[in-house]
Amino acid sequence: MKKAVIGLSGGMDSATLLGLLLEQGYSVTCCSFQYGSKHGVYETEAAKKIVEYYKAIGFEVNLHLFDMKAVFSGFNSALLQGGVEIPEGHYAGENMKATVVPGRNMIFGSIMAGLAESIGAEVIALGVHSGDHFIYPDCRPEFINAFREAVVQSSDAKVKVIAPLLNDSKASILVRGNKIAVPYHLTRTCYKDQELSCGKCGSCVERLEAFAEQGIKDPIEYEN
Amino acid sequence: MKKAVIGLSGGMDSATLLGLLLEQGYSVTCCSFQYGSKHGVYETEAAKKIVEYYKAIGFEVNLHLFDMKAVFSGFNSALLQGGVEIPEGHYAGENMKATVVPGRNMIFGSIMAGLAESIGAEVIALGVHSGDHFIYPDCRPEFINAFREAVVQSSDAKVKVIAPLLNDSKASILVRGNKIAVPYHLTRTCYKDQELSCGKCGSCVERLEAFAEQGIKDPIEYEN
Repeated sequence: MKKAVIGLSGGMDSATLLGLLLEQGYSVTCCSFQYGSKHGVYETEAAKKIVEYYKAIGFEVNLHLFDMKAVFSGFNSALLQGGVEIPEGHYAGENMKATVVPGRNMIFGSIMAGLAESIGAEVIALGVHSGDHFIYPDCRPEFINAFREAVVQSSDAKVKVIAPLLNDSKASILVRGNKIAVPYHLTRTCYKDQELSCGKCGSCVERLEAFAEQGIKDPIEYEN
Repeated sequence: MKKAVIGLSGGMDSATLLGLLLEQGYSVTCCSFQYGSKHGVYETEAAKKIVEYYKAIGFEVNLHLFDMKAVFSGFNSALLQGGVEIPEGHYAGENMKATVVPGRNMIFGSIMAGLAESIGAEVIALGVHSGDHFIYPDCRPEFINAFREAVVQSSDAKVKVIAPLLNDSKASILVRGNKIAVPYHLTRTCYKDQELSCGKCGSCVERLEAFAEQGIKDPIEYEN
């Protein structure tokens, strides 16, 4: 069975990525990185539920939790515990730049690549999409291409990087995911340190817009 | 004061790299990664002593320890605890390939890049050299170039990757280091899980050859 390693944050994009790879017949090792983000504990819960959901309906999937809180403790971001407050408003706004976590995708991607080589998986898949590009440099096609080449070199061409959602908007991810019944009711998108999603941070706003654009009700509960 | 972040394993190459950057006027943050290698505890001790040495003579240097043992616990390598036995013999031999740790330099480098961006350091420096190229894909110029570009993209050009020893042999590193009095008596090179260096693993053999080539006595003690 062909194997893939993916990052599963517990959000919509990575849940869709997981669904797509399982539908393609991959056995998928999901990596969930606990890096000290304010919403981390809710993300991890979501990741666990999504994996259990797919396991229960017969797919080959497992979850690997990485506790990286100590590693990120010297890093600077509003997204991290101890950082400034999470800004509200639209994602494209300058204010959301405070949520950049320096080097995050490259750190997670490198670990996924090393794990893939160790377990004989030929592919690592990243869930970055076009909506991420504006404020997150490590979600842009330029980064993905450079990272892809670095992984080829580092692994002696044993591991390949794919990013199947790179040119999708959040709304088109939703369309692709609904075709294969991705369990969006189990996903968690909000950046805030609270059980109920706020509906106001850039991450919630983008999610709600995607559902509205498709005329679908978002199945999760919001504070307001 | 200009800042740099380097990986300091505690071996000859990274000690030389540290010395060169301090001589060039950098304030240096050294990252020591504890990744579950058999010789890890001795490496960390060496890294601490080297940093203390340079601090005591007035340089701006600090050490940041990263406990990554849990992250690497699912990885496969003779170098790691639980892996097969460390092979003996010359480094260039096929047998030493068992000591490759998949993705190691990219994982460490990515964390260094993220930390550099967080603390406002413009440079990360890697201690890879030409003797590493044969068996370690993540020490070859092709990898370094791809990684450099990935860091530029990931950091929006805020962080630059340098590898000042990339074209040096172990012997020429020793020549460069001796000119600036690198404290080689504090370094640790052996791959084995023992206090005294074995003198037989590829890493020891390469070190001893470099000293012999320069007609200098290696200041550390060996088992035989």
